[in-house]
Amino acid sequence: MPIPSALETPLLLLDEAQMQRNIDRMQARMDALGVRFRPHVKTSKCAEIVRRQLAAGARGITVSTLKEAERFAAEGIDDILYAVAIAPAKLDHAMRLAREGVRFTVLVESVAGAAALARHGIERRHVHEVMIEIDTDGHRSGVRPDDTVLNEIARALRTERGGGARLAGVMTHAGSSYALDTPEALARMAEQERSGCVRAAGRLRAAGHPCERVSVGSTPTALSAGALDGGTEVRAGVYVFFDLVMAGVGVCSRDEIALSVLCSVIGHREDAGWVITDGGWMAMSRDRGTQKQRRDFGYGAVCDLHGHPIEALAFDDANQEHGVLHWTGDGNVDLARRFPLGTQLRILPNHACSTAAQFDRYSVLLDGKIREWPRFNGW
Amino acid sequence: MPIPSALETPLLLLDEAQMQRNIDRMQARMDALGVRFRPHVKTSKCAEIVRRQLAAGARGITVSTLKEAERFAAEGIDDILYAVAIAPAKLDHAMRLAREGVRFTVLVESVAGAAALARHGIERRHVHEVMIEIDTDGHRSGVRPDDTVLNEIARALRTERGGGARLAGVMTHAGSSYALDTPEALARMAEQERSGCVRAAGRLRAAGHPCERVSVGSTPTALSAGALDGGTEVRAGVYVFFDLVMAGVGVCSRDEIALSVLCSVIGHREDAGWVITDGGWMAMSRDRGTQKQRRDFGYGAVCDLHGHPIEALAFDDANQEHGVLHWTGDGNVDLARRFPLGTQLRILPNHACSTAAQFDRYSVLLDGKIREWPRFNGW
Repeated sequence: MPIPSALETPLLLLDEAQMQRNIDRMQARMDALGVRFRPHVKTSKCAEIVRRQLAAGARGITVSTLKEAERFAAEGIDDILYAVAIAPAKLDHAMRLAREGVRFTVLVESVAGAAALARHGIERRHVHEVMIEIDTDGHRSGVRPDDTVLNEIARALRTERGGGARLAGVMTHAGSSYALDTPEALARMAEQERSGCVRAAGRLRAAGHPCERVSVGSTPTALSAGALDGGTEVRAGVYVFFDLVMAGVGVCSRDEIALSVLCSVIGHREDAGWVITDGGWMAMSRDRGTQKQRRDFGYGAVCDLHGHPIEALAFDDANQEHGVLHWTGDGNVDLARRFPLGTQLRILPNHACSTAAQFDRYSVLLDGKIREWPRFNGW
Repeated sequence: MPIPSALETPLLLLDEAQMQRNIDRMQARMDALGVRFRPHVKTSKCAEIVRRQLAAGARGITVSTLKEAERFAAEGIDDILYAVAIAPAKLDHAMRLAREGVRFTVLVESVAGAAALARHGIERRHVHEVMIEIDTDGHRSGVRPDDTVLNEIARALRTERGGGARLAGVMTHAGSSYALDTPEALARMAEQERSGCVRAAGRLRAAGHPCERVSVGSTPTALSAGALDGGTEVRAGVYVFFDLVMAGVGVCSRDEIALSVLCSVIGHREDAGWVITDGGWMAMSRDRGTQKQRRDFGYGAVCDLHGHPIEALAFDDANQEHGVLHWTGDGNVDLARRFPLGTQLRILPNHACSTAAQFDRYSVLLDGKIREWPRFNGW
């Protein structure tokens, strides 16, 4: 695919064909497992991309902010899960979304949160649709599957006089799967995530509470689960692009990464072995997600314009609008001759979610042309 | 200053009065040193803020992207230095800015860059205004003050038939000052920055080249320079807000940081000693700038709503929309009682440039109210 050399850099290149393969792979896996797939749109924040996920078979979406919910509701998506425990000051906003016709599900993980939600609903004669966050790996928030507080939360979600909250189910996210890197460990974590969430659902049902939805997922566990018995839906986000962290985890190859930052060579320091580019940390983000993995890619993996790795160029350092690539190969190379001023390079990101958030659009390689798809950021 | 508890978080709080003190402090220092001050707008990317810098006495601005140049030219600013060595594909854009009436100065740091610039100007009958980047501390790009290539670059900036390039001066940025933390080392670095840049200017003039502008600066050196003899202007950006990195360097106190992220408590993990907030790395950025300093603040310094530090809460970890604050104080504390659901906290950023870039507006504490000032991002 030719990329015009007159492009002003940095820009965020998206290989549409590779993204579609990633979408199809995940959907096929979910179909085989017999579960509903609800993609997490926090990765792309782009209507064009979410349309492709839904066209492939996804049903409903997961969001990380109310802005994502607003924007995608405006695109006609009517089933949205806000997968972050809701702050009390956001309850009016959540209610507005639901009243505009979205099946809008919020998350709680404490008795105080459930009570605030129920009180808000009762006062405003609105029934909040709610899931309880389950902690299956101790990495963040949520209630342990066997914690007695689980049924207390369900009881606190009381409904009176046409308002309150309705328990729709349980959800969990085994985020610690990002720290694993063998198929065996990933499969074990997927089973731990599934079984914990299913166990929590069983305890709620045994106590007489409704719990129709059992939602699990992260990209690594979704692609590593052998079976999802008892689960009803899976959530995953970063699979749509993949990135170096996911390659390090082992759920994709570097060739499957659909996103890269196009930058241009703007200088050389032959004595230091440096090639300087106009793609600094503002373009890559400060995400150093591979730092703790077996291979640390610095600020990203350097490739040529065709996407072929240039293994000898290490992206060691970055300033706001300067990338500093360090030549680690043959000491006799003339860097200014090998990578002349203006040479375009593609950098694969450590973490697609954070790198994409540095841009307000995707420059999409599609049918031999570059098109622009807007994305949004912020709250 | 009261902050309404109904605010949806996270948001980027700016203390206008503190920012004005920071602006006044820098301008007073520059006035005392007898140099022109050209603020770097890459930090704020906000017209309201740059207006205040100019009102205080700044003349012209420094930018890190052509988008910044476009936006501030549209605000009527007619003297702009683009302080990143220009990529060849951006020369047409630079010419357009100059032809729209901006005194638009670009940067080169190699013979190839100078030749490309001159050729472009000659072909289009445009004279590019250009400065040569000088490397005074080896941290990034530029030409060493004593390098013979300096005069070769000046010669390559030839002008013919009404087009080419005109050498306006030299500029340097001692970015390695960010790694220092004593007044003595900072003063030495400021003098190294000044003397190297002045020496380069002298060599150019001795060879018969014009070199009217001698531009130096970074926030740490600007605030540490004892004298700037031979320098004509200073550039600095982050001083406008300050941040934890600058406090660690020693050029401000934590009280002088004008920027913070307002977030809300959304959960607790009593067993782990965690308070979970809705301010994750998407709000703070992934910048861990204090990691190498004497005090590592994790993802930021936790304060209460009034800006008073809560030293026992360490911002250890972050997910995209979750902050994980770790209680390091008395083990018997009831976190959910001490920091109830919905409690608002203010987080001081490691690096103001990267944290501010996560937001599209400032929520400004001004005259007892919160106003919104837009900022832009991207390229």
